Amino acid sequence: MANISQSMLEAIEKELQHQVARLDQPRTKQFHEMLTYHMGWTGEGAGSLATGKRIRPLITLLTTSSSLEEKNKANTIVTKWLHANSAAAAIELIHNFSLVHDDIQDNSDLRRGRKTVWVKWGAPMAINVGDAMFVIANQAILDLIEYYPADMVVKAARILNDCCLDLTRGQFLDMSYEERNDLSIEDYWPMIGGKTSALISACTHIGSLLGYANDQKQESYRLFGYHLGLAFQVQDDILGIWGDEAMTGKSAASDLVEGKNSLPVLFALGKNGKFANRWKQGPITVDEVGSVAAMLENEGGKDFAEKMSEAETQKALNYLKQADPQGEAGDEMLRLANMLLKRKQ
Amino acid sequence: MANISQSMLEAIEKELQHQVARLDQPRTKQFHEMLTYHMGWTGEGAGSLATGKRIRPLITLLTTSSSLEEKNKANTIVTKWLHANSAAAAIELIHNFSLVHDDIQDNSDLRRGRKTVWVKWGAPMAINVGDAMFVIANQAILDLIEYYPADMVVKAARILNDCCLDLTRGQFLDMSYEERNDLSIEDYWPMIGGKTSALISACTHIGSLLGYANDQKQESYRLFGYHLGLAFQVQDDILGIWGDEAMTGKSAASDLVEGKNSLPVLFALGKNGKFANRWKQGPITVDEVGSVAAMLENEGGKDFAEKMSEAETQKALNYLKQADPQGEAGDEMLRLANMLLKRKQ
Repeated sequence: MANISQSMLEAIEKELQHQVARLDQPRTKQFHEMLTYHMGWTGEGAGSLATGKRIRPLITLLTTSSSLEEKNKANTIVTKWLHANSAAAAIELIHNFSLVHDDIQDNSDLRRGRKTVWVKWGAPMAINVGDAMFVIANQAILDLIEYYPADMVVKAARILNDCCLDLTRGQFLDMSYEERNDLSIEDYWPMIGGKTSALISACTHIGSLLGYANDQKQESYRLFGYHLGLAFQVQDDILGIWGDEAMTGKSAASDLVEGKNSLPVLFALGKNGKFANRWKQGPITVDEVGSVAAMLENEGGKDFAEKMSEAETQKALNYLKQADPQGEAGDEMLRLANMLLKRKQ
Repeated sequence: MANISQSMLEAIEKELQHQVARLDQPRTKQFHEMLTYHMGWTGEGAGSLATGKRIRPLITLLTTSSSLEEKNKANTIVTKWLHANSAAAAIELIHNFSLVHDDIQDNSDLRRGRKTVWVKWGAPMAINVGDAMFVIANQAILDLIEYYPADMVVKAARILNDCCLDLTRGQFLDMSYEERNDLSIEDYWPMIGGKTSALISACTHIGSLLGYANDQKQESYRLFGYHLGLAFQVQDDILGIWGDEAMTGKSAASDLVEGKNSLPVLFALGKNGKFANRWKQGPITVDEVGSVAAMLENEGGKDFAEKMSEAETQKALNYLKQADPQGEAGDEMLRLANMLLKRKQ
């Protein structure tokens, strides 16, 4: 990993801890601990595996830096990427707020190999933990006022909250699909656009805004993030069925067992063939994973998802080219995008 | 009710509907309906009883208007109270977001005589409904940018989110008290400061900011709201035990049966007498309500709470005097404060 990404990741972690410390007060120590546990800093299994990769704030700061480079060359701006750090932290907090609530909604016991917040402290407390993270995210993005003009702070906060409403829309669709059996791929993109792409496009949109990119560049960055999110999600869907972990030893990790409405599944449901027939009969067991995955592949679910992933990847890379990221951060952004888009695991 | 309050209440309702309509889109009609149901506009029992009184946004706009009056006399400001309306809506949405989540956390079936959102649509959906309201509250306050300079918008949004963090702190304390049996009145004020007063002080703080009051006036208004909130809550606690509804026919409505850590209860727990002894033995039944309330009164719980309510009322009215609200809105604010502070029901 290049030096600049390493510096950014360290700065992000520090800022996140600073933001969450708002709850580190005499009467709310335990409340604070619930947040630091979820963030991966404290409790059983704390450490780099528990924190997650902080990809979203990293993309945010890389976007800011690769936009600023150009301005700095022209010697017109005295901002550093570090000034955008509270916005990067805000985005990571939004991501984590949605995970905490998602785990309650999905009844998930584990997150990154550790007990979820609601399992440890109960659903009522976990709802409140997510709420607090959301509040702190808003406080964090408003902290930009220390380094940015107020009108830019308002713009950034509006982009963030618009994205959050998309998140709740995506979440609504995802949950409402559980009760429907007439789904097809038409239902996929609005859900994933909200659940995954909205937040990644907010990273590159806010990042470029804070890098003083012009409107056209901001739009290119925004669309890069949006399609990066879609491509990433579709790949995640493919790996969730045909990836090593899903197909071998840990079959229970298969999205088929979880009943997830992923792209290959929705594609095949629209075909109303053998797979759709089996899917509608109820949960797939661990023993069936291999045969049902084969059924899905035969009916074209994998091919279709791979084509979609390829198309979204191409769109993402085209928009990134238009955005034309500069300097060390620009190189790093390209590397990161390629890594995310070509991952096999 | 004076004409100005009526106009404000109509404008508030319209703005709330406008804000919530962000979810009124083809794929999220049902999601939108969940919010309009909770807000009291649609579904079984919709109407003025279901909406609640909209006291908080009304206080916000009355504060704005009673501050503006002075500036308008000096002919320096062209703002109207209507311009602060999206902030008023934001505060009401925060209040309602906290109710939706609170109902899940407390396992409450009814709210204002109607089924709660989680009872109608399940807890996972209700969590998401609360989240969406919270997001829309942030979007609403940022909409101030249409009428106010950006630095004021950032200030207002920061006050709102600081208050929201206090809400989550109060909620944490309230829930954590359920597992403790060493409580005393020391534990009351931080909880109630977060759960009730933070939001009412945000009303008067933001309202006066948007009325272009100077810092000193803003502080007087803020403290007025804070102590109004405390006085109001203490009165609510008294009515919850010795009010008509609690003592007569609907004994199940008694806070004693609900096991609520109200001020009279925490006072008596600190005394470690007969009441404390009974309280620690488990839930009070409907049949016991009369005798346990008498026990609590004998041990001084009612007197103490009435003195506290009186003291907070006095503080609130003193700060309101310092704030010196002007014009028709000023008169109306005084009337409303007196009504809230002297209510017997």
